[in-house]
Amino acid sequence: MTQPDTRANTAPEPVAATMADGRELYYFYDSGTAPSATPIPDRRDLPDRPPSSELRYDPLLGEWIAFAAHRQTRTHLPPADQCPLCPSTAANPSEIPADDYHVTVFENRFPSFGPEQHAQVLGAGLGSVDPAHGRCEVVVFGADHAASLSGMGGERVRTVVEAWTHRTRALLALDGVEQVFPFENRGAEIGVTLHHPHGQIYAYPYVPARVQAQLRQVREHRERTGGNLFADVLAFELEEGARVVHRGEHWTLFVPFAARMPVEVHLMPHRHVGDLTELNDAERDELASVYHRLLRGIEALYETPTPYISAWYQAPRGRRAGGYDDGRGEYRLHLQLTSPRRAEHKLKYLAGSEAAMGAFVGDVMPEASAQALREAIVRADA
Amino acid sequence: MTQPDTRANTAPEPVAATMADGRELYYFYDSGTAPSATPIPDRRDLPDRPPSSELRYDPLLGEWIAFAAHRQTRTHLPPADQCPLCPSTAANPSEIPADDYHVTVFENRFPSFGPEQHAQVLGAGLGSVDPAHGRCEVVVFGADHAASLSGMGGERVRTVVEAWTHRTRALLALDGVEQVFPFENRGAEIGVTLHHPHGQIYAYPYVPARVQAQLRQVREHRERTGGNLFADVLAFELEEGARVVHRGEHWTLFVPFAARMPVEVHLMPHRHVGDLTELNDAERDELASVYHRLLRGIEALYETPTPYISAWYQAPRGRRAGGYDDGRGEYRLHLQLTSPRRAEHKLKYLAGSEAAMGAFVGDVMPEASAQALREAIVRADA
Repeated sequence: MTQPDTRANTAPEPVAATMADGRELYYFYDSGTAPSATPIPDRRDLPDRPPSSELRYDPLLGEWIAFAAHRQTRTHLPPADQCPLCPSTAANPSEIPADDYHVTVFENRFPSFGPEQHAQVLGAGLGSVDPAHGRCEVVVFGADHAASLSGMGGERVRTVVEAWTHRTRALLALDGVEQVFPFENRGAEIGVTLHHPHGQIYAYPYVPARVQAQLRQVREHRERTGGNLFADVLAFELEEGARVVHRGEHWTLFVPFAARMPVEVHLMPHRHVGDLTELNDAERDELASVYHRLLRGIEALYETPTPYISAWYQAPRGRRAGGYDDGRGEYRLHLQLTSPRRAEHKLKYLAGSEAAMGAFVGDVMPEASAQALREAIVRADA
Repeated sequence: MTQPDTRANTAPEPVAATMADGRELYYFYDSGTAPSATPIPDRRDLPDRPPSSELRYDPLLGEWIAFAAHRQTRTHLPPADQCPLCPSTAANPSEIPADDYHVTVFENRFPSFGPEQHAQVLGAGLGSVDPAHGRCEVVVFGADHAASLSGMGGERVRTVVEAWTHRTRALLALDGVEQVFPFENRGAEIGVTLHHPHGQIYAYPYVPARVQAQLRQVREHRERTGGNLFADVLAFELEEGARVVHRGEHWTLFVPFAARMPVEVHLMPHRHVGDLTELNDAERDELASVYHRLLRGIEALYETPTPYISAWYQAPRGRRAGGYDDGRGEYRLHLQLTSPRRAEHKLKYLAGSEAAMGAFVGDVMPEASAQALREAIVRADA
């Protein structure tokens, strides 16, 4: 395992602003284009922010569930002229008080976690409750309502990488935040409620179930084989080769041996880093390039855009500080992009076996899925 | 913890038959109506059964994934006159060679697990594969294509309970089967591919992830409190009361304190039994009655039928035999019925946070959900 690279990020700091109800907002600009003007103030008459949601402990599975009842009334597929992520106008006083922007990040008005942050965590038992502290942020990829991130070009993807990195560093420093999760849900078929191109970042006050399961596997693999699980998975996929979609200098893109979804691709760094803040500039450059090609390939898989969930898996808080004996130091940053689309007009549903038992049944062989994605990337590059 | 009741099931044995390609088929009849006639033979010219699917080990999460590539071409929402679950006719040689029937169970033609069964389990490591042994069965609730189980009456539900019980006993006895999972997916919104009223039973060659997580919680709760997790959860819900939907003599129906889904209700027996085969006749009678009322209540929640997943959680194999030190003896049978419907025209989607992180955010408070279900059951009873 190599030492983490702790060189400071060389990207410029974003321009910070405060929204009318006190929420934080950050403008990130594509390289070399940062404006000299200061942001326009947000002069809307907004209601107070809602209180934090409630966090309840599920004793049967040992997980915390957030209850964000105020989200039942959240904005749902608004018409384009009322889009809260478009540039603000007199007729549509949106969330972003600017005429144009590149990547903009702000605190979600209807958060599942936060606005409260505090270090206290209640004991987990029958009937345990806690305010759902933490933070939820929205990452707007640009001002064009009808665009997609894949269509915005490599420079914009690079700026998104900078925004993810900046926010990961900032959110990991907040009281009580245990896990920072940048992601993008794309496509109404998987429940997206706003069409404007955007992602989100959740900062959880606990280590989510999926990461806990991976940490158990990391420890078990170390005890059984003496090796690092992520390094060994990457070496296994590179040696097999049949599922490798792209092998770069710093990153490899592959369909995993036991992919759960009809489209599932993992992007893993060759160097052992725990989160986005530990990447160096060369790794971030290649990440932007490979991720851009991946998104263009996903777009080219079918005649119509393929819905997807793109999800960053990062080491939980405390990776560097030590004091944890649970595999955090061995956790490696990686991306998992999945889609339920199993044919032009068919989606995979997670019904009884998957939803109730957690027992997945795949419809598409991972080798075939890797081949289809390789061909789609070639088509998109042409 | 009371001793399991091991009295034999007093229900009559089903009428057994063999399908044209060798699959097993069982006819269960409503009480007092068993026919004297022998079944009509299945004279179709069917192709050989497909080979077993492939089981691959996912090292990042420690789970087995089945690859049933032949299911990509399975029957998908056929028109009613080609329904494979309707009574067989010359024009529609269906899966069931009978003019009329009550509850019919047969081996799935496109199984995710099986037809192979064997005891061997390969070690779990990088690249581990195994034939997806086990068994998948279809449970047809009756001959009427357009009916629903809730509309078929309490006597039919009682017969379904008998069928679940019979098959649980038989499937637990098969080589290599670790978990028997009876369930019903209902509604095209959640991916049901056949409208004819039916459920399924999966017999897995491993203990699924969700049950493994519960077993960990059972052990952790015992170590921390000295109590049985399921008994303590039931006592907690009965004491709180606000989420109890129905309290019977042998069963209690409640919305759990930390429900993940907008509609989620658990049905738990008061006596500590591990699976359906350990219930006595009085418990099975009350189960049929309570489950029938639950289904009618779910039907009455909205103007249109509510899609749902109804899932039986049973102790894995080996509960009685001993030799396991992993909480199996402390595992209690229960049902979880969930629906993603969060309003008349809105579904909850499992996107980034839920699907990728396993971190659930609820939209509906469990107390409000319990109240809505209580009222729906009153409306359905009226």
